[in-house]
Amino acid sequence: MKAVVYQDPFTVTVEDVPDPTIERPTDVIVEITSSAICGSDLHMYEGRTAAERGIVFGHENLGIVSEVGGAVASIKTGDRVVMPFNVACGFCRNCLAGYTGFCLTVNPGFAGGAYGYVAMGPYRGGQAEYLRVPYADFNCLKLPEGTEHETDFIMLADIFPTGYHGCELAAVSPGETVAVYGAGPVGLMSAYSALLRGASRVFVVDRVPERLTKAEEIGAVPINFEDGNPAEQIKQQAGGEGTDKGIDAVGYQAHAQKGGGEAPAIVLNSLIDTVRATGMLGVPGLYVPADPGAPSEDAKRGMLLVSIGKFFEKGLRMGVGQCNVKLYNRQLRDLIIAGRAAPSFVVSHELPLEQAPNAYEKFDKRIEGYTKVVLHP
Amino acid sequence: MKAVVYQDPFTVTVEDVPDPTIERPTDVIVEITSSAICGSDLHMYEGRTAAERGIVFGHENLGIVSEVGGAVASIKTGDRVVMPFNVACGFCRNCLAGYTGFCLTVNPGFAGGAYGYVAMGPYRGGQAEYLRVPYADFNCLKLPEGTEHETDFIMLADIFPTGYHGCELAAVSPGETVAVYGAGPVGLMSAYSALLRGASRVFVVDRVPERLTKAEEIGAVPINFEDGNPAEQIKQQAGGEGTDKGIDAVGYQAHAQKGGGEAPAIVLNSLIDTVRATGMLGVPGLYVPADPGAPSEDAKRGMLLVSIGKFFEKGLRMGVGQCNVKLYNRQLRDLIIAGRAAPSFVVSHELPLEQAPNAYEKFDKRIEGYTKVVLHP
Amino acid sequence: MKAVVYQDPFTVTVEDVPDPTIERPTDVIVEITSSAICGSDLHMYEGRTAAERGIVFGHENLGIVSEVGGAVASIKTGDRVVMPFNVACGFCRNCLAGYTGFCLTVNPGFAGGAYGYVAMGPYRGGQAEYLRVPYADFNCLKLPEGTEHETDFIMLADIFPTGYHGCELAAVSPGETVAVYGAGPVGLMSAYSALLRGASRVFVVDRVPERLTKAEEIGAVPINFEDGNPAEQIKQQAGGEGTDKGIDAVGYQAHAQKGGGEAPAIVLNSLIDTVRATGMLGVPGLYVPADPGAPSEDAKRGMLLVSIGKFFEKGLRMGVGQCNVKLYNRQLRDLIIAGRAAPSFVVSHELPLEQAPNAYEKFDKRIEGYTKVVLHP
Amino acid sequence: MKAVVYQDPFTVTVEDVPDPTIERPTDVIVEITSSAICGSDLHMYEGRTAAERGIVFGHENLGIVSEVGGAVASIKTGDRVVMPFNVACGFCRNCLAGYTGFCLTVNPGFAGGAYGYVAMGPYRGGQAEYLRVPYADFNCLKLPEGTEHETDFIMLADIFPTGYHGCELAAVSPGETVAVYGAGPVGLMSAYSALLRGASRVFVVDRVPERLTKAEEIGAVPINFEDGNPAEQIKQQAGGEGTDKGIDAVGYQAHAQKGGGEAPAIVLNSLIDTVRATGMLGVPGLYVPADPGAPSEDAKRGMLLVSIGKFFEKGLRMGVGQCNVKLYNRQLRDLIIAGRAAPSFVVSHELPLEQAPNAYEKFDKRIEGYTKVVLHP
Repeated sequence: MKAVVYQDPFTVTVEDVPDPTIERPTDVIVEITSSAICGSDLHMYEGRTAAERGIVFGHENLGIVSEVGGAVASIKTGDRVVMPFNVACGFCRNCLAGYTGFCLTVNPGFAGGAYGYVAMGPYRGGQAEYLRVPYADFNCLKLPEGTEHETDFIMLADIFPTGYHGCELAAVSPGETVAVYGAGPVGLMSAYSALLRGASRVFVVDRVPERLTKAEEIGAVPINFEDGNPAEQIKQQAGGEGTDKGIDAVGYQAHAQKGGGEAPAIVLNSLIDTVRATGMLGVPGLYVPADPGAPSEDAKRGMLLVSIGKFFEKGLRMGVGQCNVKLYNRQLRDLIIAGRAAPSFVVSHELPLEQAPNAYEKFDKRIEGYTKVVLHP
Repeated sequence: MKAVVYQDPFTVTVEDVPDPTIERPTDVIVEITSSAICGSDLHMYEGRTAAERGIVFGHENLGIVSEVGGAVASIKTGDRVVMPFNVACGFCRNCLAGYTGFCLTVNPGFAGGAYGYVAMGPYRGGQAEYLRVPYADFNCLKLPEGTEHETDFIMLADIFPTGYHGCELAAVSPGETVAVYGAGPVGLMSAYSALLRGASRVFVVDRVPERLTKAEEIGAVPINFEDGNPAEQIKQQAGGEGTDKGIDAVGYQAHAQKGGGEAPAIVLNSLIDTVRATGMLGVPGLYVPADPGAPSEDAKRGMLLVSIGKFFEKGLRMGVGQCNVKLYNRQLRDLIIAGRAAPSFVVSHELPLEQAPNAYEKFDKRIEGYTKVVLHP
Repeated sequence: MKAVVYQDPFTVTVEDVPDPTIERPTDVIVEITSSAICGSDLHMYEGRTAAERGIVFGHENLGIVSEVGGAVASIKTGDRVVMPFNVACGFCRNCLAGYTGFCLTVNPGFAGGAYGYVAMGPYRGGQAEYLRVPYADFNCLKLPEGTEHETDFIMLADIFPTGYHGCELAAVSPGETVAVYGAGPVGLMSAYSALLRGASRVFVVDRVPERLTKAEEIGAVPINFEDGNPAEQIKQQAGGEGTDKGIDAVGYQAHAQKGGGEAPAIVLNSLIDTVRATGMLGVPGLYVPADPGAPSEDAKRGMLLVSIGKFFEKGLRMGVGQCNVKLYNRQLRDLIIAGRAAPSFVVSHELPLEQAPNAYEKFDKRIEGYTKVVLHP
Repeated sequence: MKAVVYQDPFTVTVEDVPDPTIERPTDVIVEITSSAICGSDLHMYEGRTAAERGIVFGHENLGIVSEVGGAVASIKTGDRVVMPFNVACGFCRNCLAGYTGFCLTVNPGFAGGAYGYVAMGPYRGGQAEYLRVPYADFNCLKLPEGTEHETDFIMLADIFPTGYHGCELAAVSPGETVAVYGAGPVGLMSAYSALLRGASRVFVVDRVPERLTKAEEIGAVPINFEDGNPAEQIKQQAGGEGTDKGIDAVGYQAHAQKGGGEAPAIVLNSLIDTVRATGMLGVPGLYVPADPGAPSEDAKRGMLLVSIGKFFEKGLRMGVGQCNVKLYNRQLRDLIIAGRAAPSFVVSHELPLEQAPNAYEKFDKRIEGYTKVVLHP
């Protein structure tokens, strides 16, 4: 079958690889109809990880079940399904507690597995014609038959739940004010989710005008951090006080103002400043324990200079980490089916699988409006 | 009346000051029967704060109501009461949400007030014969008449709820394993509270043998951090995994091993290492945004080097800050009355008010077993 | 001043009564600009309670502070404020826990007080020119200056929070399906709140076409119970399953189908049938321990025949009771200010105080579209 | 193999039945070392259910894995395991939400399955030499090797989690007062769990002196309901107020005072009276939608006369239903291993499988101290 294969930094190709097969009786094979490119794929693409040549990318996957293992009970051939980017077993203590992003079974020696991602276990990605899905009863979410909402539903694999996870970590509740740092796909999904949950006002911080326009279109207040300290801008608009809650949808590759270069802790520290005493921070934005490209020796080890004194004085709380997609994907699916959510507004391009190399290049350069690409094999 | 008055670094005196009076109709005056010395009093005593000469110390106060303002509804002369160290109004948005440690009314310009503490508002301390209590209906917790449980009840003003707050921030629940860093009074109260809440195993980290013995006596597992990396010691005893939850009852004045001097972030980073993926950290231990005595320029501004990469990878959550005593003091009082809790086991000395100067000196030097002193004016 | 005074069953008059005065230093006097008539006022109006001649009605009150007691700290003359219908002290154990509808102070011998309501304490109602508000720091919610959103804000005194309370008791969360029984003002507010909180589909059951049309206009699915068993109708539309959650906004004066008369437990039992196993029921609709007009001896004592066997088999949970308005009114106010909520869509009439007798009569008869009347003294 | 087989009302036999086999690759076979007799087995034994001749009893099962299906990942031959009485799949929406007692997969057409119980699916019971366990990765809880704590661990299959479930439904938290109705094994486990969770005072209501003595031995306050209205007795001891929380560990086969016969709603109504306004009720005690032996036509259909008016006036909440054992069994196991819980104090007899007929007879008659029997095949 055809698949998107990593070769070298800044090079992926579409080439033939062996078809996946049922390896364990709890597996199914899915014929992929949509697989999205994620910002986190670019970490591998840029060569900033230990990813080796030959890895098949793709952890946001949707398709039709084409083959079913002998122990699978609830999924059958022909079912239309979307999979969380996390691979999870469903029975370890972390899965039982809902922390499917930290499964102790599927990636021995590490808490958590995923498709098509370096160090996340032996699971090939879905930017390909077919995908093997382990523990299929647990990992497949059924969708209505047909092709409706295809680009909405593919958002359920990662970024809609991940944005929502930011709200959940920050316990965003009706009537609250929220500051979201980052207006990329995840940041927009966080803002969108905050409004779905009944937030009264949502501020979205970025510096790319097109992204800020998108934020405004969904009902958020855009804050351009090149126009001045974003925490101060938000406080001015929020009556002097900070917001009730804050979400970091940027992570460690944050940039300082005015071409100041990467500043890995700048968003965390801005959030500590932005949120009012007793508030909560949700951090779906990625931080890593080892980053060879970081601007300092400490940052290379994931050690960041954080304003702990102020964090304590304000009595804040912070939740971080990879999304447990399964905690939210069914409910978010139901919002899409009911016509109450349409997360595909972040999709910029839908392309055939063959155009993946070109799409990666343009997305990586953030040119021609490439912000969220869905591949249709 | 007699009161303990701060003079200069390392000097307090007992001297005459004017009696407090009803200033607002919501005040009461309490004749103090017990007022404890807190580790945080030593920050002022040692001159590491902006505290000025003349301040009356004492934020852990218990006594008998001697005078009642005209708007007070539920408290009357003769009532035996204990007060949270926080002064709070009861009607601002933070108090309404239970965050009485971050009251927006009583200390304008800052979230939170307290008795007898620098920068916490104009409230004289209770290491004195009498104390003015503002918003008395809200701030007084009634106790059974008489003198029973006096040293248990005085623990309700601060350290029992503060230790419990660590468990609440970490959401310690039945059957869980917990690591508590610090076996001073607050750490012991955290460990004690974790056991009260049904934790299965509690590890307590310190290096002072007497403190570790106390921890063992209440049913915790002592871990001496001079014997080796405490996170590794705990993991060995917990079957290779880290604990479910962790509590930092040390704060910024943490010490490295083997006389390594102050290392303000060492406990936070050890906790991130100690707690297993998906866990939670509760941090009642104090961190400050300005510490002139800190070992680095960054630390002087409350900026600490924290292992954010690992924190994220493990998907942890962290809650910090001063205790909202009122959230817990009634329930903890009821446990004392029912004979189910007896926190006075941490009290080392009960002394008359006149001996306060001597007690401060010995407590500050940690000599002669001075760990928790209760003054009886 | 002028006030709406109860005389006899089906008779209220507007007459002169003494102006209210500051009775305790924690009081304020509010010059009423809006006071709404509530469905629960009709219980008294119809003579189905122990209300005696002379009571001034009105527990949904908004106005401008005209006089301030000496112990009030945060409210000043000229402030525009809305009051919860509950009178509460702010410092009893129930108020501290957020249960301001069950205050132990303001109505000795009973848990809970209110303005202008029989057996709810000595608090005159606000269908009058002025209102005394006890514990004003606690009971007044400040509004923006001016007259904007007047009919939205008056909904904050009772029915918007009460409808929302139904969602809170049932823990309505994003993506869930909800069945609301009753499309009167509270039922509509429950449905509106469920959608604000992110419900995917909300079904509203009633038999009055105009009410069902209102429900549809806000995005709910109308279910006319005269067209067949409402539980079955909902299950058919919800794919065979029941809803995740259910709200009873009807209470004990429920009616059976086809003129079957009052059937006090019919809504509770229908909800048990409507909600799927593991679901939750929120019951803001009123049930009473004594109802002289009930259709059976048991019902007269508040004893109803409930399908407990099925309730248990399905593993349901149920929360009931009067709304604790203060838990929600600030957040809901902020949604109104931000333009995200406009609950005044339920208001049918705005009238001067003098027209109260006429308004009560027509509202009681449910004629001429009288569903929610706001009086402007 | 040998198994306990139901014949007719009041008759079980131990006879040979075919050995169980691996039917699906997700199954394991367990060689039973302990299987307890549950009070709910007596419903079938007495002929008050639709149970037919030939059913093998036993839903509280512990043993050693003897055979493993090809799709099982985490369980291997020789593992010592205990199973929840609920059979559950681990991937339906109810299991995902933690409601494993309401699994939608294992017993088609009904929410929930169990071993050896009428209408709970085709799962043979474990009062036998071997047991087939479906979805073994999900349903087996591993225990330490050996034979230690055997009678403590067998309590994890049902009654310890079920008693704990009562506390969870009532959200029992530290410092609270709790009333438990029923001092049978489940009631004692509820009281024991409440104390483990930090309750300050626990009252246990029954009329059997031996049971009340057991309650007292674990630290609860015994209340004999033959000595007077239990709600009044409790209020007197609790300072006039009711308790914060209440647990019904009796269910529909409740008895009125003084030989008054079965009164199916008496415990529910007593609890509504016992618990103070704003409290919560947890109901693990069984209520059924069809009871041919009930004392009235309504009760035969599971319709009970409940004091809804008072329930509403007090603003109570109630949670009911079969325990989701998997939510708690790991944590409770860890308390046993740590020596912090020893639920086997309720066990009255340990017997070989052959003595099951005799044990059923005596347990059913409640003679010779038969309260909780563990069979060792």
